[in-house]
Amino acid sequence: MENVIGNNQPSRPDNIDQYIIDAMRKDGREAFAQIAEKLNVSPGMIRQRYNRLVELGYLKVVAVTNPLMMGMRTMALIGVHTDGHRLLQVAEEISKLDEVVYLVVVGGRYDIICEVFCRDHEDLLKFLTEKLAKVDGIRETESFIHLKIVKEIYF
Amino acid sequence: MENVIGNNQPSRPDNIDQYIIDAMRKDGREAFAQIAEKLNVSPGMIRQRYNRLVELGYLKVVAVTNPLMMGMRTMALIGVHTDGHRLLQVAEEISKLDEVVYLVVVGGRYDIICEVFCRDHEDLLKFLTEKLAKVDGIRETESFIHLKIVKEIYF
Amino acid sequence: MENVIGNNQPSRPDNIDQYIIDAMRKDGREAFAQIAEKLNVSPGMIRQRYNRLVELGYLKVVAVTNPLMMGMRTMALIGVHTDGHRLLQVAEEISKLDEVVYLVVVGGRYDIICEVFCRDHEDLLKFLTEKLAKVDGIRETESFIHLKIVKEIYF
Amino acid sequence: MENVIGNNQPSRPDNIDQYIIDAMRKDGREAFAQIAEKLNVSPGMIRQRYNRLVELGYLKVVAVTNPLMMGMRTMALIGVHTDGHRLLQVAEEISKLDEVVYLVVVGGRYDIICEVFCRDHEDLLKFLTEKLAKVDGIRETESFIHLKIVKEIYF
Amino acid sequence: MENVIGNNQPSRPDNIDQYIIDAMRKDGREAFAQIAEKLNVSPGMIRQRYNRLVELGYLKVVAVTNPLMMGMRTMALIGVHTDGHRLLQVAEEISKLDEVVYLVVVGGRYDIICEVFCRDHEDLLKFLTEKLAKVDGIRETESFIHLKIVKEIYF
Amino acid sequence: MENVIGNNQPSRPDNIDQYIIDAMRKDGREAFAQIAEKLNVSPGMIRQRYNRLVELGYLKVVAVTNPLMMGMRTMALIGVHTDGHRLLQVAEEISKLDEVVYLVVVGGRYDIICEVFCRDHEDLLKFLTEKLAKVDGIRETESFIHLKIVKEIYF
Amino acid sequence: MENVIGNNQPSRPDNIDQYIIDAMRKDGREAFAQIAEKLNVSPGMIRQRYNRLVELGYLKVVAVTNPLMMGMRTMALIGVHTDGHRLLQVAEEISKLDEVVYLVVVGGRYDIICEVFCRDHEDLLKFLTEKLAKVDGIRETESFIHLKIVKEIYF
Amino acid sequence: MENVIGNNQPSRPDNIDQYIIDAMRKDGREAFAQIAEKLNVSPGMIRQRYNRLVELGYLKVVAVTNPLMMGMRTMALIGVHTDGHRLLQVAEEISKLDEVVYLVVVGGRYDIICEVFCRDHEDLLKFLTEKLAKVDGIRETESFIHLKIVKEIYF
Repeated sequence: MENVIGNNQPSRPDNIDQYIIDAMRKDGREAFAQIAEKLNVSPGMIRQRYNRLVELGYLKVVAVTNPLMMGMRTMALIGVHTDGHRLLQVAEEISKLDEVVYLVVVGGRYDIICEVFCRDHEDLLKFLTEKLAKVDGIRETESFIHLKIVKEIYF
Repeated sequence: MENVIGNNQPSRPDNIDQYIIDAMRKDGREAFAQIAEKLNVSPGMIRQRYNRLVELGYLKVVAVTNPLMMGMRTMALIGVHTDGHRLLQVAEEISKLDEVVYLVVVGGRYDIICEVFCRDHEDLLKFLTEKLAKVDGIRETESFIHLKIVKEIYF
Repeated sequence: MENVIGNNQPSRPDNIDQYIIDAMRKDGREAFAQIAEKLNVSPGMIRQRYNRLVELGYLKVVAVTNPLMMGMRTMALIGVHTDGHRLLQVAEEISKLDEVVYLVVVGGRYDIICEVFCRDHEDLLKFLTEKLAKVDGIRETESFIHLKIVKEIYF
Repeated sequence: MENVIGNNQPSRPDNIDQYIIDAMRKDGREAFAQIAEKLNVSPGMIRQRYNRLVELGYLKVVAVTNPLMMGMRTMALIGVHTDGHRLLQVAEEISKLDEVVYLVVVGGRYDIICEVFCRDHEDLLKFLTEKLAKVDGIRETESFIHLKIVKEIYF
Repeated sequence: MENVIGNNQPSRPDNIDQYIIDAMRKDGREAFAQIAEKLNVSPGMIRQRYNRLVELGYLKVVAVTNPLMMGMRTMALIGVHTDGHRLLQVAEEISKLDEVVYLVVVGGRYDIICEVFCRDHEDLLKFLTEKLAKVDGIRETESFIHLKIVKEIYF
Repeated sequence: MENVIGNNQPSRPDNIDQYIIDAMRKDGREAFAQIAEKLNVSPGMIRQRYNRLVELGYLKVVAVTNPLMMGMRTMALIGVHTDGHRLLQVAEEISKLDEVVYLVVVGGRYDIICEVFCRDHEDLLKFLTEKLAKVDGIRETESFIHLKIVKEIYF
Repeated sequence: MENVIGNNQPSRPDNIDQYIIDAMRKDGREAFAQIAEKLNVSPGMIRQRYNRLVELGYLKVVAVTNPLMMGMRTMALIGVHTDGHRLLQVAEEISKLDEVVYLVVVGGRYDIICEVFCRDHEDLLKFLTEKLAKVDGIRETESFIHLKIVKEIYF
Repeated sequence: MENVIGNNQPSRPDNIDQYIIDAMRKDGREAFAQIAEKLNVSPGMIRQRYNRLVELGYLKVVAVTNPLMMGMRTMALIGVHTDGHRLLQVAEEISKLDEVVYLVVVGGRYDIICEVFCRDHEDLLKFLTEKLAKVDGIRETESFIHLKIVKEIYF
């Protein structure tokens, strides 16, 4: 996802759009007809609004999976210190790794923070020593192994 | 989401389940009929499999929104140090705050790491000084303000 | 100075305003007439534009003094850790102290960073132990004593 | 501004000088005549004293601008760790960058602390990855993004 | 085990003692007769020497178990910061907890470092939030979760 | 010791095995006959069970020595930061050193934590500057010198 | 020793004073007569100059002892974090302890750094847990145990 | 001064030696005759004992100077991180610098801690950037500038 801030936003979400967003946040497969009925409009209008929201990049409807159920038992946030001049390349390269589900460039003590899903400790160790290690320009990493996921807005 | 590891997993995802998961990761609103056709099975079977995956907690289909498009321009990861005996209560209380989209209890330098979406710096400052400040048992916080989101698997 | 972001900005600085700003950055006492001549407009227009810029809060013309020449030989930046719920009060209270020339609330390792001008080490020590110490809600401070000021845009 | 401590200071500011300094700290464009009247001396004397104070480096009258009004929405203090033998060169090189409004060499955890004014997060990221990154001899940087400017003696 | 340094050590281990120690380090159940044969002395002498070494506190023969085989899958070293005046009481209290297999008071960044064996992440979290939390005088803890045990002289 | 998690564990310790383990934890040289008597089984069965537990890697009976009695007066835990791509090689190389009695790869602030037994400060200094220094890929080390060993489950 | 900077220093050390200082830095018991001879002045003058230097607080002639020879085998520098408002009282109280040979208030990560001479680890531990612990207002301490004294200008 | 621990110490200080040491700690130029009188022994014996204490390295009588009186106004403790394999060479090289009055190799966060006496901030900056910078093998330094010397056992 890119950090593009569009200055001109001709069509900002209105009440109907917001309702669609909220409904689909709960159930992404809710039928357009069902939403339309509650709003007392036609399903075609809902479908149209939905397509536009997707096109403009406001939302996507996707399946999100519970990592634990999918066999991922060792998850960690990793703070990364990089060599300054390679910061963005390092961010890109780490992002390509399958274990990485999330990566941000930040201000503060670390340059990059990313989240990884691994099967177990051995898998995490492999990730650190074989995959992350191959990325040029990483000075130091610090792993925060998850003990409990308390809130995750999608699941 | 709780960290419950079920020891007995009678019905683990098989190939058909996995196909459904993968397809819906791309498009959560793909019609059962469409998936069924590719797999050469009945839509009813796909519907049945889907319902079971949802019931067992393997997946959910939801709308995910681009925070920037939704007006959130100041996002941050926050590392929290708590008083030991209140660690889980603090985690629960912080989780209830609307700005918090993600919260984990971790091993390492911090006790808790959470992610917050705010509108702007003023909003983040309000969050830190008015909302987070009301949570009893927080010794110290350290904010990592996002400069760029490079990877986010849902969007 | 407050962090007020005005959404509506009817009169943004135009070329003439910018020229006045640039000129006065070099010499704040440059006569309106002199600036007017270079721009081929009337001094009265320059005076009017200047007053408007001041009124709207774009600029101020002030004397800035060289702290060393004024007898300040021990200057330091101080990082402050506060109790979360008192963060803004602490910021306000520290700001009132005469030695403090600059104070910001920040994200990161510290909650507040301020700059102080003191006469000598004894003066700084007094500031830390007598004045700063009286402010309720400061957990910890860390001083960075200046060894050399390399750039200061005003002087 | 250089850290030159003059041992011989033949003409230290007297009461009249101090009055001029204080008056101009409030309004740098106050007319010499106005100041002279309050002190019951001639404007020429005030002008003479003013010129001498400027010549000797005690003060300068300049326009100071409100960075927020000028479109700078992302400001940060940056702590820099350098390779020892290049400390002063690094300080000089960073100082040359336009975004840098302030830079000091300090004792303590960091070698250099500087302040930068950027338009937005993207601009700050560019500064860190493209401009700062080109400076040879920087081992590590840590950014403290401003959430609120509480005190700034000039504005 | 106490840190008692005996100044007078009348009977320091001689060659025969050392041989017994080395042999039993490899196999703690090696028969006295077997050791005696290699040394060309009587088994009774070996038995006598062994008893004396045990009495004087030089060695103990015990079963050491592989924690992984015993179901311990989450092991961690924990650095503890204590309130100074309770340092030794805290050390004693933490030592009493079953999960704790090792505890030392150290110089440096932490006051105490201990090692814990837990069944899984949930067990470790329980240990941190329920057991360790009950110990009065702990300011802060930092856990280092084991990813791989590379050397352990007993096993 | 390797981090091998066997998925299939046909013969998990039963009550009799556990009794043997517990008994031998107290006294590793307790006669099979003695254990057998308490359990009302034959010594041959105990011997058989014992051999199987050893074979499967559940336990070992060894002599453990009190380091202080053996002349080791300076013991320390050492946190090691490594170059990422050499993490496992560094772990292996440090493990080979005689002074090292324990070494783990961890998540968190350090990459490796190991424990060393040395005769005195001079010996520890030699270890740091001559032996550890020869290992390629160590960025930094931090030593925690033991002041008191409060718990050590073997001795 | 107090941090009193006398502004008026009527009698600054001249060449003869400096020679006396340098000579006595090497051997504090060198006879006045011997020094006088090298300078070709009277012993009485040397005696007079010496007394004045002592009176004015420029120098003292004392015996300095080698701590190791005196049985001190565990020496450490200790960084102390204090509660701000008690900083100077804490400094005074710690200074009174016999083990403390040196104490400074500093800028930076710590508030106070002091040096202690103890007999052994047990003695240091007693110092930390019994003596230092009784001083009110100490938040945290960090000990740096000496491994080797490389330079000490007096001995 | 070297860290040599002599095992055989045939002539340990007795009561008379101790009295001499204590007396000279207060006044290093106290006449042997005066000490002898208080002890009711001959001056020759005191002289003999004194010479032996000096020879064996128990004490030295030297002039110690008040650094502030000698014009040293900027003093600092400096924590140094070195490349492991050059630790002792770095210690030696830094020790040779005139500003360095004290240097120890330590366990803990830093590898070396030294104390420097400089005339002023500019002098300290020169020391850091010109002298210390020339020493090969220093990764990082952290300066703690003295604000007040509270205890110094010699002065």
